[in-house]
Amino acid sequence: DMVAAVEDFFGGDNLLLSGKHAVVTAGPTHEPIDPVRYIANRSSGRQGFEVAAALCRLGANVTLVAGPCAQETPAGVTRVDVETAREMEAAVTAALPADIAVCVAAVADWHVKNGGAQKLKKSKDGTPSFEFGENPDILKGLSGMTEGRPALVVGFAAETEKVIEHATEKRARKGCDLIVANDVSAATGIMGGEYNEIHLISAAGAESWPKMEKGAVADRLALKIAEILKG
Amino acid sequence: DMVAAVEDFFGGDNLLLSGKHAVVTAGPTHEPIDPVRYIANRSSGRQGFEVAAALCRLGANVTLVAGPCAQETPAGVTRVDVETAREMEAAVTAALPADIAVCVAAVADWHVKNGGAQKLKKSKDGTPSFEFGENPDILKGLSGMTEGRPALVVGFAAETEKVIEHATEKRARKGCDLIVANDVSAATGIMGGEYNEIHLISAAGAESWPKMEKGAVADRLALKIAEILKG
Repeated sequence: DMVAAVEDFFGGDNLLLSGKHAVVTAGPTHEPIDPVRYIANRSSGRQGFEVAAALCRLGANVTLVAGPCAQETPAGVTRVDVETAREMEAAVTAALPADIAVCVAAVADWHVKNGGAQKLKKSKDGTPSFEFGENPDILKGLSGMTEGRPALVVGFAAETEKVIEHATEKRARKGCDLIVANDVSAATGIMGGEYNEIHLISAAGAESWPKMEKGAVADRLALKIAEILKG
Repeated sequence: DMVAAVEDFFGGDNLLLSGKHAVVTAGPTHEPIDPVRYIANRSSGRQGFEVAAALCRLGANVTLVAGPCAQETPAGVTRVDVETAREMEAAVTAALPADIAVCVAAVADWHVKNGGAQKLKKSKDGTPSFEFGENPDILKGLSGMTEGRPALVVGFAAETEKVIEHATEKRARKGCDLIVANDVSAATGIMGGEYNEIHLISAAGAESWPKMEKGAVADRLALKIAEILKG
């Protein structure tokens, strides 16, 4: 299996990330519309929790900032629970400094202004009207830090079409080091499932991984992170 | 406890609803915005599952139409899982005829038109634009059936202010027999918790129940339903 392969590759040394601090975000965010409604992202949190576990297995000290999800905290990982994107950003900031940041969470791009106040009623014309505010871009914020930037900032992207092209654009736009792009087009049957089909985007270009379980994706990514930090 | 009280009250006969078919809706609905985002209602599904279990304990044949939630199916209950309001209506209709309909689900009032297609991108001005369509009103639809209407149609209402006034208006507007109104104002600390604070609205007016666990609310409601059907 992958862990055995990692141990073989590194001659049995599986503490490649000893002394490193990694911050991982995982899960969806929930953005309140009113006391009983919210906008959510369709994320089980599984992939982010697997990444946290994999980094931890390689010896990293891991802070996992998790949106609302039903995953169990991996052994040895420090977990901070949040609900909204703004809470997630605050928790990530509070967890710095870090050597590694891996933004796996499916963070909402917007929040509803004045969300969470009185219950919204149907209007006369039968439709609601929301005013949106932009959420902080956690990945871009970490990537663009002028002081104390994590040595390696990794983003995830769920794409439904032109996966490599969109993810390559995203890497440039965010200023991060790696984008782990997941093909979630309906044809792959990925969304909410056990498997991911990954294209890893770096400055060197794209490498495409075979379809594999989320745990295997996490192990392979943790290995790649260790390789890059080793230089 | 409440079950013992019910049994005492009815002289140990706890099969008051034998031969009756009850349809219960429970949980939130999820309305897709795009492949990775949806609008959800903040409902654990707990109260509806408790109602299904309580009706079943009184001998009813129960069909439980459940939105996405993590509750376990009560013993003896037939469960149908759905995601959206439109799917919930279809499943309720398919389950008819019924003697009793209890609409506990927190059903979304709207769906996003063309929801579930390509992933929404941020627009130039940074905010998204959704076009909403009105969802079917399952409670009103059942209440207004001219042929084969369930003998007793019960709705639930989560209200944050003027609870009895709003719920009484809702009962008239929907045409249902009972409204179980839950005070979810922040002051009560109810939302997502174990307890509900109920005002039962009928043609006779409002009766207010002490704050009690969702299981006790369900037992008391099931008893009330049996009383009314007994005539």
